[in-house]
Order: sequence, then structure tokens, then C-alpha cells
Amino acid sequence: MKMLITGGTVVNPSGAIASEVLVEDEAIVALGAPGSSAAEAWAESSDRTIDASGLLVIPGGIDVHTHMEMPLGQTQSSDTFETGTRAAAIGGTTTIIDFATQSKGHSLQTGFQAWLAKADGNCAIDYGFHMIVSDVNEESMKEMDVLVEEGVTSFKLFMAYPGVLYSDDAKILRSMQQAANNGSIIMVHAENGIAIDLLVAQALSRGERDPRFHGETRPSLLEGEATHRAIQLARVADAPLYIVHLSAAEALEEVVRARDMGQRVFAETCPQYLFLSKAELERPVFEGAKYVCSPPLRDYRSQADLWKGLRTDDLSIVATDHCPFCFKEQKELGRGDFSKIPNGLPGVENRMDLIYEGVSRGELSLERWVDVTSTTPARMFGLFPKKGVIAPGSDADIVLYDPRSTHIVSAKSHHMNVDYSVYEGMELHGAVSMVLSRGRVVVDGGKYVGHKGHGSFLRRGLSRYL
Amino acid sequence: MKMLITGGTVVNPSGAIASEVLVEDEAIVALGAPGSSAAEAWAESSDRTIDASGLLVIPGGIDVHTHMEMPLGQTQSSDTFETGTRAAAIGGTTTIIDFATQSKGHSLQTGFQAWLAKADGNCAIDYGFHMIVSDVNEESMKEMDVLVEEGVTSFKLFMAYPGVLYSDDAKILRSMQQAANNGSIIMVHAENGIAIDLLVAQALSRGERDPRFHGETRPSLLEGEATHRAIQLARVADAPLYIVHLSAAEALEEVVRARDMGQRVFAETCPQYLFLSKAELERPVFEGAKYVCSPPLRDYRSQADLWKGLRTDDLSIVATDHCPFCFKEQKELGRGDFSKIPNGLPGVENRMDLIYEGVSRGELSLERWVDVTSTTPARMFGLFPKKGVIAPGSDADIVLYDPRSTHIVSAKSHHMNVDYSVYEGMELHGAVSMVLSRGRVVVDGGKYVGHKGHGSFLRRGLSRYL
Amino acid sequence: MKMLITGGTVVNPSGAIASEVLVEDEAIVALGAPGSSAAEAWAESSDRTIDASGLLVIPGGIDVHTHMEMPLGQTQSSDTFETGTRAAAIGGTTTIIDFATQSKGHSLQTGFQAWLAKADGNCAIDYGFHMIVSDVNEESMKEMDVLVEEGVTSFKLFMAYPGVLYSDDAKILRSMQQAANNGSIIMVHAENGIAIDLLVAQALSRGERDPRFHGETRPSLLEGEATHRAIQLARVADAPLYIVHLSAAEALEEVVRARDMGQRVFAETCPQYLFLSKAELERPVFEGAKYVCSPPLRDYRSQADLWKGLRTDDLSIVATDHCPFCFKEQKELGRGDFSKIPNGLPGVENRMDLIYEGVSRGELSLERWVDVTSTTPARMFGLFPKKGVIAPGSDADIVLYDPRSTHIVSAKSHHMNVDYSVYEGMELHGAVSMVLSRGRVVVDGGKYVGHKGHGSFLRRGLSRYL
Amino acid sequence: MKMLITGGTVVNPSGAIASEVLVEDEAIVALGAPGSSAAEAWAESSDRTIDASGLLVIPGGIDVHTHMEMPLGQTQSSDTFETGTRAAAIGGTTTIIDFATQSKGHSLQTGFQAWLAKADGNCAIDYGFHMIVSDVNEESMKEMDVLVEEGVTSFKLFMAYPGVLYSDDAKILRSMQQAANNGSIIMVHAENGIAIDLLVAQALSRGERDPRFHGETRPSLLEGEATHRAIQLARVADAPLYIVHLSAAEALEEVVRARDMGQRVFAETCPQYLFLSKAELERPVFEGAKYVCSPPLRDYRSQADLWKGLRTDDLSIVATDHCPFCFKEQKELGRGDFSKIPNGLPGVENRMDLIYEGVSRGELSLERWVDVTSTTPARMFGLFPKKGVIAPGSDADIVLYDPRSTHIVSAKSHHMNVDYSVYEGMELHGAVSMVLSRGRVVVDGGKYVGHKGHGSFLRRGLSRYL
Repeated sequence: MKMLITGGTVVNPSGAIASEVLVEDEAIVALGAPGSSAAEAWAESSDRTIDASGLLVIPGGIDVHTHMEMPLGQTQSSDTFETGTRAAAIGGTTTIIDFATQSKGHSLQTGFQAWLAKADGNCAIDYGFHMIVSDVNEESMKEMDVLVEEGVTSFKLFMAYPGVLYSDDAKILRSMQQAANNGSIIMVHAENGIAIDLLVAQALSRGERDPRFHGETRPSLLEGEATHRAIQLARVADAPLYIVHLSAAEALEEVVRARDMGQRVFAETCPQYLFLSKAELERPVFEGAKYVCSPPLRDYRSQADLWKGLRTDDLSIVATDHCPFCFKEQKELGRGDFSKIPNGLPGVENRMDLIYEGVSRGELSLERWVDVTSTTPARMFGLFPKKGVIAPGSDADIVLYDPRSTHIVSAKSHHMNVDYSVYEGMELHGAVSMVLSRGRVVVDGGKYVGHKGHGSFLRRGLSRYL
Repeated sequence: MKMLITGGTVVNPSGAIASEVLVEDEAIVALGAPGSSAAEAWAESSDRTIDASGLLVIPGGIDVHTHMEMPLGQTQSSDTFETGTRAAAIGGTTTIIDFATQSKGHSLQTGFQAWLAKADGNCAIDYGFHMIVSDVNEESMKEMDVLVEEGVTSFKLFMAYPGVLYSDDAKILRSMQQAANNGSIIMVHAENGIAIDLLVAQALSRGERDPRFHGETRPSLLEGEATHRAIQLARVADAPLYIVHLSAAEALEEVVRARDMGQRVFAETCPQYLFLSKAELERPVFEGAKYVCSPPLRDYRSQADLWKGLRTDDLSIVATDHCPFCFKEQKELGRGDFSKIPNGLPGVENRMDLIYEGVSRGELSLERWVDVTSTTPARMFGLFPKKGVIAPGSDADIVLYDPRSTHIVSAKSHHMNVDYSVYEGMELHGAVSMVLSRGRVVVDGGKYVGHKGHGSFLRRGLSRYL
Repeated sequence: MKMLITGGTVVNPSGAIASEVLVEDEAIVALGAPGSSAAEAWAESSDRTIDASGLLVIPGGIDVHTHMEMPLGQTQSSDTFETGTRAAAIGGTTTIIDFATQSKGHSLQTGFQAWLAKADGNCAIDYGFHMIVSDVNEESMKEMDVLVEEGVTSFKLFMAYPGVLYSDDAKILRSMQQAANNGSIIMVHAENGIAIDLLVAQALSRGERDPRFHGETRPSLLEGEATHRAIQLARVADAPLYIVHLSAAEALEEVVRARDMGQRVFAETCPQYLFLSKAELERPVFEGAKYVCSPPLRDYRSQADLWKGLRTDDLSIVATDHCPFCFKEQKELGRGDFSKIPNGLPGVENRMDLIYEGVSRGELSLERWVDVTSTTPARMFGLFPKKGVIAPGSDADIVLYDPRSTHIVSAKSHHMNVDYSVYEGMELHGAVSMVLSRGRVVVDGGKYVGHKGHGSFLRRGLSRYL
Repeated sequence: MKMLITGGTVVNPSGAIASEVLVEDEAIVALGAPGSSAAEAWAESSDRTIDASGLLVIPGGIDVHTHMEMPLGQTQSSDTFETGTRAAAIGGTTTIIDFATQSKGHSLQTGFQAWLAKADGNCAIDYGFHMIVSDVNEESMKEMDVLVEEGVTSFKLFMAYPGVLYSDDAKILRSMQQAANNGSIIMVHAENGIAIDLLVAQALSRGERDPRFHGETRPSLLEGEATHRAIQLARVADAPLYIVHLSAAEALEEVVRARDMGQRVFAETCPQYLFLSKAELERPVFEGAKYVCSPPLRDYRSQADLWKGLRTDDLSIVATDHCPFCFKEQKELGRGDFSKIPNGLPGVENRMDLIYEGVSRGELSLERWVDVTSTTPARMFGLFPKKGVIAPGSDADIVLYDPRSTHIVSAKSHHMNVDYSVYEGMELHGAVSMVLSRGRVVVDGGKYVGHKGHGSFLRRGLSRYL
């Protein structure tokens, strides 16, 4: 099976080039100069020719931060691997890395197998897993080495959520030492949960129960603090560090300082922190609950700084932290007590479009769009060059993107299994036209034409960022 | 004429990938996955197949800072366009951008045409020109716009050398305003020449006449100062800025500050600042004269910081500032008066190897080597994607690089027209094996097999760094 | 003649203490604890007892930056030494340091003698001189050493005003070297005058002629730039540095950086930069001209940063740069061409009250008020402990200040010889009640009761800040 | 009882002035200009005249960080309040502030009373207490308010020593909130004890048991980290912060950043960090144990930075953290296990001389010496102007200091109850000649002539640093 994508502009991080792309079975096998005899030969021998005139041909998006069907107390995030990966595909994302979770008192392997089972046979696109380490002890440290061999090469620790997922500084340092040894990378949720829990308890005791207090009790200073702390612990361990969902200018400042010194510190931000602000949390009645996530939405200064950070490469990746809960029955669990609102927003379907909107507004270059949404994620998490680039030998995970199209975001038309959109009514420039996953057309004309179970588990290698 | 480069590892900034490269006439026309039917078809239809097994296939080096046959007082730099570009080719560089110079009182165009004439018919590889602006006035400003149309899209101003090439801050600001308008970029030699000239006169009056006083009278603080000043003037003009031959930690610190704020400031450093130190200037008798260049060689702290800056992308480009003068009769003009030693070092032939040595030592990744020596130079100076990348449609400027070879640098074996080497006796890992310039093999097995006049003038576009 | 000041609170920078102050002739001779037998003995033996109950007893203000009867083109600043020092006294200032100016082509000594003559016999309070060096050459450098012996221990150089007072970087560096040697201190007006003159010419050529363009053509970036430059030149010379009238946040940032590194860099700001903003320059018709000074008034961020800098000791001194020109006939010279508006504002009478207003608003402590307006000026410019402190042996330059009084600033009631006030209508908390100059009451109940010629020339020693 | 100190130079932070000092009973009652009739009258009426010709007359030293007879496991620090305060007096210190400690499970008041009882009737000089809070809970928070009323206005929390004195971030934040409310100040021991304990356990498990591993397991990065964290928590609480015994350049850098922003952050360092380095910990056999304290001794870069910080006022105070343990039987408890070596060094007797040595070496001015050892401690901890200044009305805590004397430090001649000196053999310039405590001569000619029980408890007010 040969397929020729013709007439498009291939965008990789190092530049945009008019190029024909030849796909054979699951892989890209050749790129050719338009009009060259080599490329013209392909047209004849291909089984299918796709006209990409006027379109951008980009490596499929890689969303390295999703939480599909994630258990949370008595509920779970509202997208299953089936619905979530389908929505991702429609939005131009062809790979997700989700988080398998160790339950306290159980092994890492048990958690990993449970998540493998959830995803198996259900995904529209390829997927991998990071592992959340809840118990740092000598057994779990040894298991980290085993998991690296099995293709789980990144481990997440929480400085937030005491009593639940929280690890203290000794545990974080210990896991960093292990990662420094086995070549994996530690990801941290950097908020000072111990201090935050005090502020939350104090707010509740003062009768402050509305969603906006979620934001007020998680001040950006405490994200900056935890970010600095994680960075210093990584220096002590001589380990690389990956900060998830960086939201605050104060946290970015710490990342900038570390990177200026040459430390291997990397950070991801999310579309919600680039486009939304804490003002949303103050929406009347209980509407603010829709915008409750952690870290919370920040102020406009942080938005501006985050765009700058993406441009200057102080922020490396845009992921979504997709973790949807329906407003009805789920977000509503926190009526009268903001601390009971499930934390998380939907977004896996919107990421590629939202960051392309940054291109339209002049915040980022076209190449940087591809870099932060696909290539760097692939390199960071051991998927390159199989994923993350339009190049011979790479998986044919390809998105044809129409830069002249526009569309309006709405829960009415989106495909995520959640009853609202945080971007409701927003008009975006650019839209996904076609999506290939390992050579299969899974989205065509914006419609999903794939099937569940096509996506397969990705054994990842080590990060290329050393 | 079709040529297939087979079995090699293609290195572009976004990654290293095993790939077949098909060249047709002057251009790369296709890249193919090894073993794919598409690529296998090429083997049959090619006129020549080059075995690149075990070799790196990289875009030819681009040296954006050379001074061939540059007049200096009664003498001139010792490499002509013929000898200099030949040495460049042997060293893996397939494009140079040299500096055409406006003579005071004459038009930019006159200078430009003079340099075009010098190069025409003499070059082994392609070449472009930056324009040195010696007279900033309303006419020369208008001429800048014309030159941009003619493919000269970068203009150099000097904060050093009062009475010769020096421009005061009003002139620098004025030229930046013009560049902000016409899309070109201003390059500055950032040393406070006014203050330096005082220190030089004072040193001479104290009888300090040896080469080492060249370094002592050009303190790194005065490079840091001028760098800061250039950056602020660029902010006032809202123009991008390119700092040439950054040598001092203090100057880098200013670039880092500006880039952290998102300002479009870019800097180049040179191999001599990465590998050599001011200790060389103290060599006995008059040997130190061989190492006299401006800015002068610095201390070890600066070396370490420059490597870090290259790694973290605070330094964008490595160029050579190749400006050779023979020790005999040229450097010797400064015996008894360091201020009369012609400023400049040879290096155009050594750059690719020296920076690869940084890869061998773990200072840089393979991808970053290509980035700082070829891709970013191409993007910065309007040559991309014609140059600077191995991609379909690009010029077939290709270097096959053998990472396992080693060689020893020596004036006895080098091809630059100069009687010494500043790297004499240094053992380097890696070596150029073959070089193609627009599809022609110009170096084979380390031997020059090209011919003068093959190289042609490059009309450059605008910088892609906005 | 003995005088006892009883019942007051003596404020020195290290604290506020209830203390009796005994004055004999021109000096403070003793401080005593209220109620002690020693102090009680004084009451009997004194010729006069002044009741300071409820009042602050502070060392008389020292304004180290005034320009009395300063020639400017065809006009001169509107306060003579007589009127200006009288107004100063009324405002609680008992010492000024004015600027003697070297005329180009003439000796420093000639300028110094001219200014001595202007002041001689005219001043209400003591005075000293800084020397403005207009010609840096080997003769003037030697003269600096002589002037230091004569009590002129600080020298001012201009980075602004090309063609008039401007010195290039070599001249500034040269003078700093001289100061490093003779123990004096270089003061700089830090604005990049070369670049500013281009912006001014461009604005005028575009027809931008109103007062507000005065501010727009002197951007704060160019003050930050010059400040950084002066600091680096001082590092090269290993000399201390004093920045006059610092106005911009960008300039303060450079001072902070230098001081954090332990460099001996000191800066003064002025009340106009703490209380007024560039919005004043946009007043309709030609009213903005009243607010034209250089550096120009800045934005609110700078105001906030300057208050912070005063509090944290990154700014050392508040002086006025008092240089009044009447609106009528003087400021009006610039109607239709902002560049012809005489630069300068009145303020010598208002300084102590305005900075005390900072105390009232919680910006500064009481001690810091005394420190920045009197003690540090005395130490910085070689007058301590003769001036700047309430201590035995010091000159009896004493202000009794009433913290509970309020008053409204107005040109109708002020004593400076100028037809407007930039603080017109502002209500201030605190007021001068009585002023002693060398033991003589010169202001009583807010009324001037001194006489011209009382003030004498101060031969200053070297700065105590090393 | 009247005493006249005549002929000396009185040094206060704002300057050194020749002045006669009249003491009556316990207080300074007057300062007079030498030769004035007022001062001459005192000579006649005084009961005793002390000739201070050639001597410096300074406010007695205030050591705000001592641990007398502090329980530690089965032992206690080797100086009692009797021996420790006597040694302090001999060294020119006339006030100590020691640390009363809350035992876990008991009230603050119980701890405070216990320490009052230990000191009562035993001290040679006046003393106050900070309170160590071991249990942060609602009761202890209320007790803080009570203690403030009783003259204990500063509270210490530990980020080090988990399981012993350690408080987590919520507890530290909670106590800061309380302090923000009641006007007291929180002091923190800023080392990340949680992470350190991991490193200690790992070192021991690797068989690293010598004293030098004490230093290696407490890296300066973890002091910098904790310092940053404490600062951010104080920002969240909007409370002032006092960092005790700052030792590392990394920690100082965080203090500098905070102070540059105007935050009320203050830090103390200790003589051992200014004069000694981690090289001491590597002394052969077990000698290194003598130098075990926490934070540990650091490298030379930190020493240089700390002196700079003192000069630039980024460090506010020098205290000793005097906590002596004899080498025999006490330090020896840690033979074979560095973690069992009692932490602490002697020094209360040496502080004034050591910092004066900084004056001799040109690191500090004379005024700054008095400021960091006496005046700022008094202002910071609510003792000013009773203590910390030579002024009418202040306690007659006075040291006559001979700047021309020299002496050699030795355990053989010191008066602290400990069998070694960390400064053994060091020659110091300057020496205490006479010491007055509340008007009583307690040291004369270097000999102790006071009596135990003279010192009384100081009810302190609130800090003057707001």
C-alpha cells in the first residue's frame, strides 16, 4: 500500500519546505522535491494520491499529558481511552502519553499492567505511559529500572496533594537519583501542597467556599517555590527534570534561571494557561467550577510570560493535562466546598488548533508550533525519530492542516466526552483536514474514520535531551 | 546527472536519521528510508553511488564571518577568495558570507561591486556578502534598501576602531531604524573602541609594547559594555540585532538577559574563543602576535561559559572571523608596538572539525553541531532552505563526515594561505571525507578536486528570525 | 552664647531618641538624657532655651545638587545664590552643594573662582561646590588634584548634551582614573546624549514640537544604557561612581546589579521623579514646559521602584537638581520647539517636606528620611561629621520639624524666585518650624530671619564611602 | 555615681566622633564635645574618670544567637549561662539573646520559664530569649501572642532536623501568619532537613563515617533551597523573615534577590562562616569533629560572598550560634558515625575581635563593625535604643576597644568552658580593654571583674525593621 501526499508544505522544526511525501504501509518512506523525476515517479506507482495543495503537512501532534478514565475518589475522568483518543485524533494528535498510577501499597508493575489493560484494544491512536510513583521505597526504585526496559522511561512525582499522591523531598530526591542512574526522567507537579492545604483549610474555616477560592488558596508563589525546590533537588541528584503544567510567571522565572546556568530543566505548559485566566474562576453562581484545575488559572502577566517562554525555548512543550469532568454530577460534587471540585479540564482535542492560533497571532513561528506540539515531545520522551518528524523511516503519523480554515469551538460540536468546553465560542484560525496514524487515514475532512484498537502501545526509549 | 548517497546517517538539527539521499544535478531531490522500495529504485537509476556507511551526512558548513583579501593599511589578509574558499571547502564549509566594505566617502554600492569583482570567478564554493557601513548618512541609508533587494540583507557596524570603521551610537541607532524598516539585520562589533583607544595609548606611553598588552587594553568589561549598549539601541529601534564574534562571559551575560526578556538578539562566537585563551598572548618573544585578534582571547571562565551558551542556544552561530595574516612580514609589523599588529586569525578550514571536537567532548549534541555551523547560519542570513539542511529541493551542499577518523592540525598540512596555525599540534576527532557543492564533488578523500569559479554569488533573502 | 533645645526627639539615621541638645556658638556641644542632672544643669546656664516638645530635631538638610544662577544660553536659572539659599533654608536645608562649571577652553580654577565669587557674601546657609569638567585633558586632570586640596572633591561629567557639556567614554574613563588616584568621586549625568540627539532631530523633522516630545525623545532605555556604561567604565578604572538624578527603573536596575556585586556605585534621585510622572508633560497648550527637565519625568513603575530603592538603600541620596526657570520668558523660549525649553525644575525649598511625605505614606522610616536627605549626603561628599548629624562637635545646623503640621504647596507662598511650582496645590504633612545654621536661628516659625552672607564656603574632605 | 569616659572616639553606625561620654548609674546621660565648657564641667563632678585616649568607645556587643547549657540528647552544651555570659563579657559582648525551647507536647510558657530559671541569677550581662517553637498548633499560636507581651518577640522554626525540631512548611507558614499579626518575627534554620537525612543515611550505608561527610551530606544547594522556600512562605504570609546562621553563597543569593525586590528579609551570618572553610572538616583522624556545626562550614567562594554581603547590607547581623561541646566525651560521641557528633562550635568570646579583624583587613568599615555586631541586633530584636548605641538615655553597655593591640586566640587562654578553639593560634588585631554593663565595669584590662547575677532579663519590644 503506497500513498503519496502531494503539493503540500512539510513543516518540521528546522523549516517549512515544499515536499512530496511518500508513505508505504505504516511508514514514511521518502520525501521528494516537487517536480523532480524521482517524485514524479511516485505519482504513478502510488495506490492513493492525496492532494495537499495549500495545506501544511506536519508530524502528528503528541500530547504527553493526558488522564483518560482516571479514577478520582468515587468518580473518574469522563473520557475513556476510546473517546479520548478519538477526540485527540480529530484534533490532530496521533500520540498520547497517559499516566499509569501506582496505588499506595502496590507495585509499580501492578499499576502499569492495569493501565495497559484499560488502553488495550480501545485506542484510536498510539499511546505510551508515564508512571506515577506513589510509594518511593527501595522496591519501587528497583521497579523503575525494570519499567525503563519495558518502555516506561518517565516517572511522575507530586509535590502537591499530601496524603494522596504527595512525595516528600527525600522521596523526590531519591527517585531523581534513580533516574540519574537508569537514564529516565522525573516529572514533577510543582506546587507546595503542604502549604496549600493549610490555606485551603483556613479558607474553608472562614466560609470561603466558592470556586474562586480554589485559585486564591494556590498562589503562584507556591508554584514558584516548588519549582525552585524541584530544580535544586535535581541539581543535588545531578538528574534532568521535567516540570509538568507550568502555569505561573514565578515558576517560569525559576526555569529560566536554571536553564541559563545550563541545567537540564525542561517545562511544559498547557493551552489553558496560555488562553485563560483566573477571572474565569469568578464566574457567577458555580460556573467557575468548570475552570478548576491545578495549578489554577493565573493572571494576564503569566499568560504573556508563558507565550514568551514558548518563543524563547524556556518552555519546551505544550501538553494539555487533559482530565475532563462533566459539569453535571462531577464538577457539582464541589458545590459548597471548592476543595471537593474534581480538578481538571478537557482539552486534548483543542491543543493543535489553539497553539496554531498562537501562530496566527504572531506569538510563535510555524516551525515552533510543530516543535512544541510534536517534535520536542517525541525527543523528550524517547519516541524520536519514530514519531515527531516528517522524515523517511518515521511512522506515517501525519496531519494535513488547513491554515485558511476557521472554526468555532463548542461543546456542541466537540468529540470529547464532556458536557462543556472551556473555550466555548472561541473562533480559531486553522483546522485539521486529514490525519494519518501509522499510514491509516483516521480523520478525513474533519470526520473520524478510524477504528478503536488501531492504536498500539509505544515502548519508549530514553530522552534525547541530555 | 543523478547521484545516490547511501548508507549514511543524515544529521539535521531536529535529529539524526538513517536515510538515503538522492541528488540530481545541483539539488537534493529526495530522501528515502533505507531498504524501502522507493529508495532501492534509486540505486539502479543513479549515475553514481557514494557509499556513506559509517559516515554522517550533513549540510555543508556555512561560515558567515570571513575576511578574504581584506585590505588593512598597506597589507591585506593573506587568503584570497581563491585560496580561502578552497581551504573552506576542504574543511567542510560550502558557503561563506564575507564582508564587503564601504570606503568612507564612497557609496555602499561601490564597495559592494568591488567585492563582487574580487570574488567573481575565483571561488570554490558559493558565497554571499554582508555590507560594512562606514558612513551612516541619509544616502547610505537609502542604499541599504537597494542592497537588500540585491541580496545583501545584513549590515555591519563597528563600535570599535574610532577613526577607521567606528560608528557612534547615533549612527548605530540610525542604521538599526533603517534595518527595522527594510527587514535586514544589523551586525555589530561590540567593543567600546573609544575607551579602548585610551587604554592603548596609556599602555604604549608606559612602554608596554608586547602582544599581551593587546589583550590587557581590551578588557572583557568593555565588550560587555558595548554589547549591552548595542542591545539597548536595538530596543529603542525595535530592531533585531546580531552580535559578531562574542568572546567574553560578560558579553554573553548581556545577551542572555536580553533573550530571557524575549528580545531578538543573536550572537555568534568563534572557535578561537572556545579553544584558546589569553595565555597564548603571553608566549615568549613575539609569538603572542599570532594570537592577536579583536576581541582578544579571554580567560577560561569565558571558554566554559561560551560552550554553555552554545548548548543552551544563547549563542546561535559559530563562525570564524577568518582573517589571516602571515607571521612573517605581516604580524611582524607590530614588533615593538602591539597596536600595529594586524588583527586576525586563520580558521576557515578548521571550524567544522573544531566544533565537532566539542561533540566528542560532550559539550554539544551532534544535532547542535549542525545547527550552529550550518542550519542557523542559513536561517539567520536568508539562505534557508536553499542551504543549511539536507532536504528535498535544497542545494546539494553536502559533507560526508567520518566521526571515527582523527587528525592533527598543522600549518604544514593546512590549505589556508598563512604560515602558521593557532591550533598547531592539536589532535581532533572526526574529519571531512567528501564535500559536495551544488551537486559537484569538490573534496574527495580529503583532497580538493574542485575548481575555482564554481562558487557563485548568493542573493540572500531576509532573516527567518523574527 | 549657649542655647538649649529641650524636649524634642533627636533623629539620626541609627535611631530616634529623646534628647536635650546643647549648642554653644556655632556648634553642638552636648546631648543629654532628658531629666538627667547633667542636662538639667544646662537649662540654667543657657542664654536661650528652645522648646522642641512634640518636634523632631534633625540635622539640617543637605541638598547636593543645585544650580543657582546657572548660565544657559542667553538666560540663567532664576534663583540667585541669595534667593535660592534663602528658600533652601526656609525648606529646612542648611547646606547646598552647587556646581561650578569649567568653560571649554578655560581652566577648572577659572570656573571655580567664578562660582566662588557669585556665592561669596550672598548665601543664607553654608555651601560647597562640585566641579563640572567640560574639557578632559592632561591639564584639567592635574587641576583636579589641586581642587581636591581646595575642598572640591567631586567632579561631574556629562554623557548627555553633545557639543555642550558632553564627554565621550574615553574622557569619562580618564577622569575616573584620576579620581581613583586622588580620592575624589566622579558624578555622571547618565543619558546617552548622542542617541538622544538623533531622536530629537527626527522628532522635530516630523513636526513633533510640543513639550511631551521632550520625554519621548529621551527614553528610559537610554538612561539605563548610560548608567550601565558609566558603571562599567568605573569598574575598568576601579573608581567609585555617583549617578546624579536617577529617574528610570531601568537605570536603577543597573545600580542594583552593581551594588549586589559589591561595586562602589551610588545614586541620587530627586523628588520630582518620586512624585511626578510623564503625564505632566502632556498638559494642554504649553503647560507641559513647566515639567521639562533631564532626565525627563518617567512612568509610574519608575516611581514605585525609586521609592523601593530608597528604602533598600540602592538609592543613597535625595537631592533636587534645583534649576528653576520662570514659565514666562524662560520656559517660553521653547514654544514651538521643545528642544529649546530650558531644562530644569525648582525644588530646593520643597525637598525635606516631600520626602517627609514619604514617611507619612509609609514609604520610608523617619531615620531613613534623615539619612537620605542629610547624613548620607554629608558622608558621601566629605562633610561628615561637621554636617549631617546631631552629635557633639558637629555644626549646629539643626531643623526643628513639626510632624503634625500640614501645608499646601504653592508658587504664591513659596520663596524660590520662580513663577510656578510643579507641586502646586499638593497637601503635605509635616513642616519646618525652626532652622539653625551654625548656631544662628535663620528660620523661625516658618519665617526667614537670617541674613545674606551668613553662609560660608565649605572645603570638603574626601568621601567616606570607600 | 557618675563616671566620665574621656578622650575616646565614639563609634556609632552613622560615624566615628571624638566625644566625652558621661555615665550616671546604669545609663549614659550625656555626650559632649571634647574641650567644650559643658564637657569640662563633667570632669569635676564625676566620681570616676576613665581615660579612653586612643581607644574606640563602642556600644557593647549583642550576640543574638547563643545556646547556653542547651540539652542535646544525653548531654548539653558545655557553657552554662554563668560561664558563657562571662566569656561573652570578656569578649566585649554585653547582651546575649539565647533560645528557650518548647519541648514537644508542652507549652511555650513551660519552656520559657525553664530557660528563665536557668539564667536567673547566673548571668554576667543582660540577656533575652527567642523562643523555639517545636509544636505549631492553635494553642502554641495563641501563646506566641502572650510571649510577645512578656518580651519574647522572636520565634525560631527549623526546616532541618526532622523528628526533632523540624516543622513542615504548613507549620512555618502558620507561624509566620501569627507573627505578621502580632508584630513578632520568625527566625528560621534554613536547611532542607528532609533531603539531608536521606543523604546522611545513604552516606552511612556506604560506610562514609568520618566528620567530613557531615559537610558532604549537607550541600549548600539545600541551604539555598530552604532559604528560598522560607522567603516565599514569608511572602505568602506577608511577614518579615530572619534567616539564622546563613553560610552558603547560594543562600545569600536568595536573600539578595528578595531584598532587591524590597521584601523584609534579613539574614545573620557567623564568624565561623567568614573565617573557616570545609577544609577543616577533613583534618586527620577525628580532629574534624571540632568543626562540625550546621549548616556546615562551606567553601572559599562562600566566605568571599559573605564578607561582600556584610559590606553591602545584604547580611544584617553577625551572631555566633555559640553552642560549644568539648572534644573529649562530647564531640567524641560521634567517633565512627559523623551523624552522632554534637553539632556546634564555641565563639561567643571571639566575635567582636573576629569581626574587627575584618575591619583591619579592609573588609568592613569601623562603623559597619558596630552596626552588624550591636546596633542592628538591637534594632532587629526590639532592644533599641536601650541597647546598641552610645547615646544619652541608653544603657551604659560600653566597650573600650584598643585598635592597636594584638592577641593570639587559644583554648589555653580563653574563658569559654570548652577544651578547644576553632581559631587556635590565629593572631587578631584589636582587643577589648574595658567593658561596662549597665554602668558597672565588668571587664578591666581584659580581666573579668563582674559578678554573676548582675545580668538581668530583657523584655524586648518589637523589631524596628518594618
